[in-house]
Amino acid sequence: MDRTALFPNLNGILHGGDYNPDQWLDRPDILKKDIELMKKAKINCVTLGVFSWSVYEPVEGEFHFEWLENIIDNLYDNDIYTILATPSGARPAWLDEKYPDSLRVDAYGHRFHHGVRHNHCMSSENFRNKVKIINTKLAEKFANHPAIILWHISNEFGGYCYCDTCKKKFQNYLAKKFNHDINKLNKAWWTNFWSHTYGSFDQIEPPYANGETSILGLNLEWKRFTTFNMTEYMKFEINILRTISKNIPITTNFMKLYEDLDYYQMAKELDIISWDSYPQFHNDKESLEDTFFDNGFNHALFRSMKPNKPFMLMESAPGVVNWNAVNKYRRPGIHKLASMQAIAMGADTVQYFQIRKGRGGFEQFHGAVIDHLGTDDTRIFKEVSEVGDILNKISEVAGSVADNKVAVLFDWDNRWAVDDVKALAQETKNYDNTCIKMWQAFVKLGVDPDVISSDADWSRYKIIIAPMLYLLHDGEAEKIKKFVSEGGQILATYFTGYVDHNLLCYLNGFPGDGLKEVFGIISEEIDSFYPTDRNHILLKGYDNSIEVYDYAELLRVDTADILGIYEEDYIKGTPAVTKNQYGKGNAYYLACRVNPEELKPLFVRMLQDANIEIKHIPDGVEYHTRYGDRTKYEFYSNITDNAIMIDNVKGMELVTRTKIENEFLLNGKQVIVVKSEM
Amino acid sequence: MDRTALFPNLNGILHGGDYNPDQWLDRPDILKKDIELMKKAKINCVTLGVFSWSVYEPVEGEFHFEWLENIIDNLYDNDIYTILATPSGARPAWLDEKYPDSLRVDAYGHRFHHGVRHNHCMSSENFRNKVKIINTKLAEKFANHPAIILWHISNEFGGYCYCDTCKKKFQNYLAKKFNHDINKLNKAWWTNFWSHTYGSFDQIEPPYANGETSILGLNLEWKRFTTFNMTEYMKFEINILRTISKNIPITTNFMKLYEDLDYYQMAKELDIISWDSYPQFHNDKESLEDTFFDNGFNHALFRSMKPNKPFMLMESAPGVVNWNAVNKYRRPGIHKLASMQAIAMGADTVQYFQIRKGRGGFEQFHGAVIDHLGTDDTRIFKEVSEVGDILNKISEVAGSVADNKVAVLFDWDNRWAVDDVKALAQETKNYDNTCIKMWQAFVKLGVDPDVISSDADWSRYKIIIAPMLYLLHDGEAEKIKKFVSEGGQILATYFTGYVDHNLLCYLNGFPGDGLKEVFGIISEEIDSFYPTDRNHILLKGYDNSIEVYDYAELLRVDTADILGIYEEDYIKGTPAVTKNQYGKGNAYYLACRVNPEELKPLFVRMLQDANIEIKHIPDGVEYHTRYGDRTKYEFYSNITDNAIMIDNVKGMELVTRTKIENEFLLNGKQVIVVKSEM
Amino acid sequence: MDRTALFPNLNGILHGGDYNPDQWLDRPDILKKDIELMKKAKINCVTLGVFSWSVYEPVEGEFHFEWLENIIDNLYDNDIYTILATPSGARPAWLDEKYPDSLRVDAYGHRFHHGVRHNHCMSSENFRNKVKIINTKLAEKFANHPAIILWHISNEFGGYCYCDTCKKKFQNYLAKKFNHDINKLNKAWWTNFWSHTYGSFDQIEPPYANGETSILGLNLEWKRFTTFNMTEYMKFEINILRTISKNIPITTNFMKLYEDLDYYQMAKELDIISWDSYPQFHNDKESLEDTFFDNGFNHALFRSMKPNKPFMLMESAPGVVNWNAVNKYRRPGIHKLASMQAIAMGADTVQYFQIRKGRGGFEQFHGAVIDHLGTDDTRIFKEVSEVGDILNKISEVAGSVADNKVAVLFDWDNRWAVDDVKALAQETKNYDNTCIKMWQAFVKLGVDPDVISSDADWSRYKIIIAPMLYLLHDGEAEKIKKFVSEGGQILATYFTGYVDHNLLCYLNGFPGDGLKEVFGIISEEIDSFYPTDRNHILLKGYDNSIEVYDYAELLRVDTADILGIYEEDYIKGTPAVTKNQYGKGNAYYLACRVNPEELKPLFVRMLQDANIEIKHIPDGVEYHTRYGDRTKYEFYSNITDNAIMIDNVKGMELVTRTKIENEFLLNGKQVIVVKSEM
Repeated sequence: MDRTALFPNLNGILHGGDYNPDQWLDRPDILKKDIELMKKAKINCVTLGVFSWSVYEPVEGEFHFEWLENIIDNLYDNDIYTILATPSGARPAWLDEKYPDSLRVDAYGHRFHHGVRHNHCMSSENFRNKVKIINTKLAEKFANHPAIILWHISNEFGGYCYCDTCKKKFQNYLAKKFNHDINKLNKAWWTNFWSHTYGSFDQIEPPYANGETSILGLNLEWKRFTTFNMTEYMKFEINILRTISKNIPITTNFMKLYEDLDYYQMAKELDIISWDSYPQFHNDKESLEDTFFDNGFNHALFRSMKPNKPFMLMESAPGVVNWNAVNKYRRPGIHKLASMQAIAMGADTVQYFQIRKGRGGFEQFHGAVIDHLGTDDTRIFKEVSEVGDILNKISEVAGSVADNKVAVLFDWDNRWAVDDVKALAQETKNYDNTCIKMWQAFVKLGVDPDVISSDADWSRYKIIIAPMLYLLHDGEAEKIKKFVSEGGQILATYFTGYVDHNLLCYLNGFPGDGLKEVFGIISEEIDSFYPTDRNHILLKGYDNSIEVYDYAELLRVDTADILGIYEEDYIKGTPAVTKNQYGKGNAYYLACRVNPEELKPLFVRMLQDANIEIKHIPDGVEYHTRYGDRTKYEFYSNITDNAIMIDNVKGMELVTRTKIENEFLLNGKQVIVVKSEM
Repeated sequence: MDRTALFPNLNGILHGGDYNPDQWLDRPDILKKDIELMKKAKINCVTLGVFSWSVYEPVEGEFHFEWLENIIDNLYDNDIYTILATPSGARPAWLDEKYPDSLRVDAYGHRFHHGVRHNHCMSSENFRNKVKIINTKLAEKFANHPAIILWHISNEFGGYCYCDTCKKKFQNYLAKKFNHDINKLNKAWWTNFWSHTYGSFDQIEPPYANGETSILGLNLEWKRFTTFNMTEYMKFEINILRTISKNIPITTNFMKLYEDLDYYQMAKELDIISWDSYPQFHNDKESLEDTFFDNGFNHALFRSMKPNKPFMLMESAPGVVNWNAVNKYRRPGIHKLASMQAIAMGADTVQYFQIRKGRGGFEQFHGAVIDHLGTDDTRIFKEVSEVGDILNKISEVAGSVADNKVAVLFDWDNRWAVDDVKALAQETKNYDNTCIKMWQAFVKLGVDPDVISSDADWSRYKIIIAPMLYLLHDGEAEKIKKFVSEGGQILATYFTGYVDHNLLCYLNGFPGDGLKEVFGIISEEIDSFYPTDRNHILLKGYDNSIEVYDYAELLRVDTADILGIYEEDYIKGTPAVTKNQYGKGNAYYLACRVNPEELKPLFVRMLQDANIEIKHIPDGVEYHTRYGDRTKYEFYSNITDNAIMIDNVKGMELVTRTKIENEFLLNGKQVIVVKSEM
Repeated sequence: MDRTALFPNLNGILHGGDYNPDQWLDRPDILKKDIELMKKAKINCVTLGVFSWSVYEPVEGEFHFEWLENIIDNLYDNDIYTILATPSGARPAWLDEKYPDSLRVDAYGHRFHHGVRHNHCMSSENFRNKVKIINTKLAEKFANHPAIILWHISNEFGGYCYCDTCKKKFQNYLAKKFNHDINKLNKAWWTNFWSHTYGSFDQIEPPYANGETSILGLNLEWKRFTTFNMTEYMKFEINILRTISKNIPITTNFMKLYEDLDYYQMAKELDIISWDSYPQFHNDKESLEDTFFDNGFNHALFRSMKPNKPFMLMESAPGVVNWNAVNKYRRPGIHKLASMQAIAMGADTVQYFQIRKGRGGFEQFHGAVIDHLGTDDTRIFKEVSEVGDILNKISEVAGSVADNKVAVLFDWDNRWAVDDVKALAQETKNYDNTCIKMWQAFVKLGVDPDVISSDADWSRYKIIIAPMLYLLHDGEAEKIKKFVSEGGQILATYFTGYVDHNLLCYLNGFPGDGLKEVFGIISEEIDSFYPTDRNHILLKGYDNSIEVYDYAELLRVDTADILGIYEEDYIKGTPAVTKNQYGKGNAYYLACRVNPEELKPLFVRMLQDANIEIKHIPDGVEYHTRYGDRTKYEFYSNITDNAIMIDNVKGMELVTRTKIENEFLLNGKQVIVVKSEM
């Protein structure tokens, strides 16, 4: 494995964020002050140009890059590198005025008015032509500038367009997918239900909100197409840069479990994965620990997209964001914990939105390193500087990566399918949270699972947790069979293997496509609970029962062993947890929804069977590891305010430069990084 | 009275449901298996072709019925009859593509895109032409097939269209109604309020959501027109069939208390009433008993539309539906209870949606007799088969009918008017539930009221309960006067007789149009309560007070006797319940909202005065009767899980073939049918 | 000061309301009866013609005023005066049919259909032409009629139009405002954030809901423009009348804290301020006292717009309204209390919507003096008559006015800016309620603050309370400096002085524009709380802590004295309340949200410092004063049902004609007016 820091010339770890000097070109005093303050905060890189199109090209065809060159030069002179964005995240007013097909059309078929951002029609030729020109000029100007270390494509891709151009592209996409055979599509989508058979691909419209919303295959393909079209657009931007700039890596910034784009598809086209992390700390819906776990799941997801290299924390909030329902400040120490969580989980960067607050605009009150007050003695500035200090001290971890043997299967097609399925209970499907909670239960056992797609390389894992795997891709059942029969352990749950890639139900028993033999059971009914409904299950060999909520399947057991049974209601006494030996491995089935933390005995057994080390992690402490070529870095964070004793820890602590022999008293909100040889 | 079973050749009771073999034409093995399984479940009839248009006519003008003929023949060879639907419930894609005026226009004036179902413009000539062709061909092909026992027109009519064709039809409808005199309309709608006077019928638009919503007369007439137009369309379909097929009766399937169509108007055009019943058992909003009562009220409503013949339970769910917010399975025994409730209340059929689940489509997870698993040993299949058994055992009840002397007045115009009235409290008008709860209180006294319209034949009843009769049709006050003066008893409530048929307030005292003399009171104020507000009333001769919620009127008493008074607030001591002798009868007035079950003493007195037998029904038991020419069938259902002793029961029990002399221990979830001679 | 009654020929106080005889022209018996009943109720004035356009001009160009002349004459013969409205509140159907540009366009760019009211495009030339004609004719006909005492322009102005004409007007408005320099606008709106720079004024669109919603300066200017355009339209109507009718004063009716129009701007064009007051008494969200306070704040606001003359209560509900979510009747005595609150706070009129209920229309169940029953013995009629009696008895108060030394600053621009700001917590910004609660705390100390705009004359006040003064107008900081330095006391709160008139943040510390020197502090952070979050502050010299909710700022103290500190969380021990001496005055700063009633010690100190008398007002009693030239009228209302002893009261009580020496036992729901010389 080639373990190198993403940006070695930065001394390893990048500390920086989005910077908008174009908003202050008439204030050289501010620009000068910014550099001073950045130096104080140990910032070594900024992201420029994310929304600079109207400064680059204020009038169509008239270009201005000289100001940017000055900025980049000045920064570079002060040892601050630049990540340069393409400006396609928002369009100048003149572009929409002249080329209205650049504007999206909404789900009712109405074109949007000019405004906001991230809302161009990705299929518009006029829009693409303008992007091509500006990107080309930008790349030609800066591709060889030594300060530029990364290209940042557009910004936070997202959304749908229902215009006629997109409709036509969608029809072509479908025609290609179904071999230009409309009957193949009709069969796959079971369209003669409600007489919905199509006579030709030309008849197919997007699932307009006031049109065809009842063909679930159409709904799903529309989402797949949107990812396809967005990816194709992203590649179009990437190709412009690659032609001119051969050596600078390329990324785009992803968002938290973003619903509408299958990031696995987009990730393939990128050199580096980066994402924007905005956890809502101290909210009233969950514990602080849960907020960290929820965020951590995302780190694991993005890390796992390219498991052999670090990822980037591209944006995060110094102090506060301004767009939440409640914009609460991060309490002292939280900024450090959140920044270090990223590093602990495999990031080589801590970046912020934003370096300095703009005086106006939608995000004038979004947290920044430099506030309107403009001084270096604000609470937030000092906390940012502290992170800068720590990153310097632990810079050697750059390039090291996670290496886990457990994975949680998290699949976009399945998210979409579960979300749209006309079954279960609308408010409690919770596919995402079900995956997160499974992941969390393992983290609490000292294991930090990867989060992987159905078509990832599964060979590096010994245990796969696959919650609610409702939809099976072509070949996925075979892949599971192979994984288990060769010695892997899998845990599946209620609502597994009901439908194929086109959402057609499997006949003759769920889970389908051969999986009922793997698990040794058939699911006959899936019952949905009202929010207050409860059942309980009893795990064999344990006395206390576990609460069941939301969903419970009625199983028919074939070859499986019964590990747990229901205790109440009409399914009392029937199996709720089973285990089936299949080849060299074991296939576990959990027929109902429970809090995964209550399944600890089961998970411990699975880990023991797989010879994976279980580590005792005190409550309130988060633990992750990164591995260099011969070095192990263990990260301990105390998210509480009280000191907690950690034992079984040994090595050189990098932040305090302390040698730890066996135990360590971790203060409230303290983070340590313990290095040991392997 | 001519008491004959609806379908005598079926041995009395029909057991079946919607079947979609057109989804499986490439799977003869499945089609064969289906017949085997139907036979096992004692299914003797299926409904075919509900959404088969695109199979019949995949390309405009190209017709295929041969497959259907094969299916019908095969079923008939296996003693399974067919109900044949016209396919107009959903349009093929080619039809919308070629004739976009078939698509509806929404309340903002925007035309829908192609998709979903039940959403054609009922006024579209193009659509009607296409329906005429397909229906004609279907009728010509199958009118004489001995398997066909019923025509099923389209499916679950509903909804509105705001297109220009409908607008023009609406204007013509109004012109006719108001004798082409726009001033007559202006006066009826009181349009010079807010300067809304129309100069001509051409100026009148439907009540667009972004247009004229403030003329309540317009809103009401728009609803009346929609029923008129839908009925006229339904008659159009009926006439096509009647021309060709003279002997086969015709129905369409109604829905639970459907808001938007006055089913009383549509019922007149049908030979048989049928409806689709989907109670949400085991929900978190009400008791299981209340769910049964709520459903039972609907049976009573549909039964009462043609009181001299049985009705049909056209659709019901085996096990579970898939389109609720929470899709919870019916617990064991519930399917039997629900099916038998329909029979007990006068249905001659138990039918399901659906016989077999489709592999795809919107309802792939809707309950069915045959699941994706495809076996005869699922819980649901066995419960369906048990119902088949029972129906065989009690087949002789077919053709018998209910015969009740009490009725609840439930009026669509009044529903619409109460719903739209700018008065009271928006969230607690609850006209429907007020009627249901009144009905329920009588059912608990062993009386099963009919549910009737204002223009029904009232002569068969001795007691009429008329909750919230806000709007009085022309002549309705006279009808009430006649009913009471000739010896009938009526109970009216708060919010009675405020407006006439056009929603104009009566002057000189509510209830208007002469009713203040019938009731001997005038209502001066109607006060609306906030959800937590309460008052209490004291019924004369009873010590405990009854809780008042939602509404309370301030009465002025003229000739009436005061039966109860308010105990609190500014109306303390004033009359709340009155009784007025009028001619040979009595007119009761309840001035406030209370739980009708608390009015039991009043209802007992009314029933005793009318010489109607009161029967003691234990809690948890539901009781209904059907009458043959000289036979009485009493149905007892135990909806609890515990055995309950029933006394005062005597006759031959048909399910267990047991002779009962006086009492019977009814097991949990058991249903018995006791036959006795009259 | 020229203290004269608004309408001296009415014997001082006007008692009346909206009357719609045009709905009853075919019922002369009703019209006759109405006058009888009005006389009984001591009604001396009615408002006519508010929605009479379609009666005046049933067909374009055909006019009918003779009926109105008859009505006015008949009323005048019975000593009932007339307020005459222009009929532009709703358009006849023929007008919309012929001139569809009279209809507004919604926020998505779609034109409305004809219907409802108050929904014309204020910029439409066609609409204006038609208004000009009808108003001219009306004025010419009635300007010299002795019965006419006031012109009433249109009705309850409100709403937005997004049509192309309005867009163009908006662009012109902006071009003028920014000196035709698009760069000036770009800078003011900070548009290069997200690349939103405009190239020309022609590119600027209104903030369409599906367009540009992210430029907060645009959003704010759109609201300012809407006020500008509405005012300009109102002036257009006013000018028509003024040309013909020189001596009759002009008003329009405002609404409760109406969000969308800056009434301060409109008030300047009117001779008299009037408003429509519809408090929801007895609701489930607040105490009865709070409902009165909430309403009272509005009286204070409208009173303060022209502090030297009385205002008008133009509409209020006899008994009940019909358009609330819950339409609950006013309990006995409430009508009197509400009517007298208006008089106590400076109104010279008590007017109702409506004199008689119409038989149909949207408000057929809205309370009226004369009900459908049509008699003089209803509860409501009697309560209205009682008010008529009292008004006669206290007629001498007409012309007297309030005179207060404390004011609450309530600013429309600031409301809009706070509402739209992307910061804080969406659900708890509560600017309005924060102002109301501050006002209420002073009223409970016997002081009845005025409610004033930023550009009012502040010289009459000694104390200004300025809650959440987020936005500072040009020159406002200077005005505050002057006010304080010359001896005034100001209390500002969290979220003060963040942005300038264009919403650009101040640099170098909030509050900006020099105010940090006035208050001697800088606010570094503003933390938003989740609904259940709490902190506490301790006021110096007091033992018990005060609860903090919603917001808390972290302060940096410069010259200010610390009066209170936070007790919890990360800001524990830091300052929460400060006082800074500035010139001859004091500037208080409250850094967090608390219930103002808990700040009583602070307010008492401020009042004492300003030599303003504090009066002990028992709970449940409302107290206000009016001043004639040498007379003081003190109003005491007991809103409870129990008698309350009032002390320190001396003078002649006008309602009971009792001389009070020192104390008075005020019965439940009683109102007294105590006159004393000054």
